[in-house]
Amino acid sequence: MSFSITEYKERIRKTKERMAEKGIEVLLLTDPANLNYLSGYDGWSFYVHQMLVVMLDEEQPKWIGRGQDANGAKVTTWLTDDNIIPYPDEYVQSDLKHPMDFVADRLKEFGKDNCSIGVEMENYYFTAKCYQQLTKGLPNATFQDATLLVNWVRLIKSDAEIEYMKRAAKIVEKAMQAGIDLIEEGVRECDVAAKIFYNQITGTEEFGGDYPSIVPLLPSGEKTSTPHLTWTDDRYKDGDAVIVEIAGCYKRYHSPLARTVQIGRPTDEMKTLSSVAVEGINACLDMIRPGIAAEEIEETWRKTIEKSGFVKESRLGYSMGLNYPPDWGEHTMSIRKGDKTILQPNMTFHLIPGLWLDKYGFEASESVRITETGCETFAKLPRDLTLKGHQLLK
Amino acid sequence: MSFSITEYKERIRKTKERMAEKGIEVLLLTDPANLNYLSGYDGWSFYVHQMLVVMLDEEQPKWIGRGQDANGAKVTTWLTDDNIIPYPDEYVQSDLKHPMDFVADRLKEFGKDNCSIGVEMENYYFTAKCYQQLTKGLPNATFQDATLLVNWVRLIKSDAEIEYMKRAAKIVEKAMQAGIDLIEEGVRECDVAAKIFYNQITGTEEFGGDYPSIVPLLPSGEKTSTPHLTWTDDRYKDGDAVIVEIAGCYKRYHSPLARTVQIGRPTDEMKTLSSVAVEGINACLDMIRPGIAAEEIEETWRKTIEKSGFVKESRLGYSMGLNYPPDWGEHTMSIRKGDKTILQPNMTFHLIPGLWLDKYGFEASESVRITETGCETFAKLPRDLTLKGHQLLK
Repeated sequence: MSFSITEYKERIRKTKERMAEKGIEVLLLTDPANLNYLSGYDGWSFYVHQMLVVMLDEEQPKWIGRGQDANGAKVTTWLTDDNIIPYPDEYVQSDLKHPMDFVADRLKEFGKDNCSIGVEMENYYFTAKCYQQLTKGLPNATFQDATLLVNWVRLIKSDAEIEYMKRAAKIVEKAMQAGIDLIEEGVRECDVAAKIFYNQITGTEEFGGDYPSIVPLLPSGEKTSTPHLTWTDDRYKDGDAVIVEIAGCYKRYHSPLARTVQIGRPTDEMKTLSSVAVEGINACLDMIRPGIAAEEIEETWRKTIEKSGFVKESRLGYSMGLNYPPDWGEHTMSIRKGDKTILQPNMTFHLIPGLWLDKYGFEASESVRITETGCETFAKLPRDLTLKGHQLLK
Repeated sequence: MSFSITEYKERIRKTKERMAEKGIEVLLLTDPANLNYLSGYDGWSFYVHQMLVVMLDEEQPKWIGRGQDANGAKVTTWLTDDNIIPYPDEYVQSDLKHPMDFVADRLKEFGKDNCSIGVEMENYYFTAKCYQQLTKGLPNATFQDATLLVNWVRLIKSDAEIEYMKRAAKIVEKAMQAGIDLIEEGVRECDVAAKIFYNQITGTEEFGGDYPSIVPLLPSGEKTSTPHLTWTDDRYKDGDAVIVEIAGCYKRYHSPLARTVQIGRPTDEMKTLSSVAVEGINACLDMIRPGIAAEEIEETWRKTIEKSGFVKESRLGYSMGLNYPPDWGEHTMSIRKGDKTILQPNMTFHLIPGLWLDKYGFEASESVRITETGCETFAKLPRDLTLKGHQLLK
C-alpha cells in the first residue's frame, strides 16, 4: 500500500465528517481517485463499473467490483476480505443486467435501502444509466449529489502525498529534458512522444514512474493554436514551435509541466507572446502565499499581461495531485475569477498560463505547492521559450 | 484526416438510417470514438464535455466543445467552420454553469427543443448530471436511450479501417517482443513497461504509433491471479510468471495482444493451465467463420477446456477497433453465452481466453478478423507460455 493505514483511516474520518454535515448516511463513490484515496485500490479496471461504499456506521468502506478484479482489491487495499464484494461477469456491458442492480441489491441486504445516499452525479464513471438504475432499484432511498465531496477532502495534501509529488517532479524534469533534447527539424513527432513516455515510466534509478492520467500533449506549428492535440508521424520543420505538456506520475500522484520549444528562429510575435507569458507566471509565483484567494492569482496574471494587450479567457490553473485518466485535475479549486478558495499550506495546483492565438500559442506551466510563507514549484526547469536548431550556431 | 470524406458521409448515412428506425430526430453523441468515427475529431479533450450533434435533416453534424478546443476541431474534422460551436470557459468544471445548459440553448436556437432526442445513457462521457441538466433545459423534448447506436454501426470495418488495424498489429508485435526480451529476473517491472510504451508510440519506420486506450497491464507472480494491475518498481524474481496485455494503436485503431512469460521453471500447474488455454484458443480459431453466432465460439472454448476440469466465468472476448481511454472494447458484441450476433466478414474482436485462478493465471489472446471463409489473427506471434531465464541453459 502507498500510505499507512492510519492515513487511510484519517481520510475516512474526514469524509464521514462531511457526510454527516450534509446528512448523507451512505456514500457511493465511483471516481477512481476517490477509491484509491480511501481504500488504496489501484488497477485499470475503471472501464467497468466499480464502487466504494462508505457508510457512516461502518468502520471500513466496502469495495464492489467485477469478479476478476476482486483479487486486485485484495492485493492493493487495506480492506478485510469480507469488505470486498465481487459481482458476476454477466453484469459486464450487458443489455440485461446492470452493475447498479447488483449494488442496489447489496444495499438492501445491508439494510440501507431507505437511507440518504450520496452519489457523484458529475463523474466520468457514474453514467446517466447508473443513476437511473440505482433510483429504480432503491425507490425508498433519497439521493443527494455528492460530487466532489471526497475531492475537497483531497485538497490539502499530507506530507507523504507531497513526497510522492516531489518524486513525480523528478520524473517530469527528466522526461521534459529528454523531449526537448530530441526535438529538431526532421524528427518525427511520434519519436519525441515515445522518448517522453519511456522516461515517464522508467522514472529514476531510485523509483519508477506510474502512467500519467493524460498522454503527452505535443501540438506543433499551427496546431499550437489549440492545446489538446497529441502527435502524428509528421516531421518537425524549421520554424515550428512545439508545445510539450506532460506530467510525471508516482503512485498515481502527478506533477504536470508544460514548456514551449522553438525550432529555428522564433517570429517576433512568438518572442513577445512568450516573454509576456513568462512575465505573467513569474508575477504570480511572486505573490502566491497562504491566506489569499485563488482568484487573486488570476487578477495578478490578468493585470500583468494586459499591459501588453493580451487577454486569456480560459482559467489559469486548477488543483491537482492524485488521479486517473482522463484527467489529472481534481475538479475542485480553479484559478479564475470568482473562485474564492483561500490558499493554505500543502494545497497543490497546476498553474498553466497558456496563451493560444489564432495561428500559434505558447505554454509554460508549473506545478506549485503552497508553503507556510509563499509557494514553491515542484520542478526546476527554465521557463523561457526553449530555442533549438540552427539559430544557436549563428 | 484519417479517412476520405466519402467514408465519413457513408458512416453518417448509416447512422441516420438507424436514427430514423428508432424515431430519433437529434442524436447527441458523447463517446469520443463516435465523435472520431463520424467527424474525424481527435484530441485529448474528452475530459471536459464535448458533443457531436447529428440531426436527421442536416447534412453535416455539429461539434460542440470547449473554446480552446475549437481550433483542434477545425484541424482534425471534415466539418465546415460554421458547424464547430465553442462554449466559453466559464462552463468548464463550474458549480454555476454546466456545458449541457449551453447545449440545450443551442438546440433551442436550432428549433430542436421539442424533438425526439437520442442520448448515450451508458457512456463514460455522459454523466448523470449531463442527463439531469439536458432534461431540465429541454422540457418539451422526449429523450431516448441511444447508447451504442453508433457503436453498432462500427461493428463491421471498412478495408481502410482493417488496414489501420494491421498497422496496429505490426506495432504490437514489436512492442510485445521488446517486452518479452527485457523480462528477466532482477529487472524492474517499470522498465519493462517503459520499453513497451516506447515501442507502442515510436511504431515502425514507416508509421508511428498512437496511444492505446489502455496502458500495459503487467501483473506478475501472485498478481497474475487478477488481470488489471499495471506495474510497480518491484524486480522480477525467479519463478515469476508475467502476463503482458497490451495493444498497438494506429490512428486510434487497436490490435490488442496478450502473452504470458515464465521466468525460470514453470510449475506443473502453470504448464497444464497454459497448454489447456492454448488448446482452447486454437480450437476457437479453427472453427470461427462467417455465419456462426458469437456464443458458439464460447461453447467451443468451454467444451475444450472442461475436458481438463477448467471453468472460465468471464466472457471470452469482445468487439474492438477504434477507441479512446479508458477502453479499447466497443461494448457491442461479446463472445459469451447468450450473444447471438452472427459473425460477418470484417468484424474484428479481441479473443482473450484468460484464466485466473486463486494464486496465478495465464493469458494468451489474439485480435481476430472474420474473413470471407474463416478468420485470421492480426498479429503473428507464438501463443505458448514464453520461457525466459536459466532453465533455458540447462
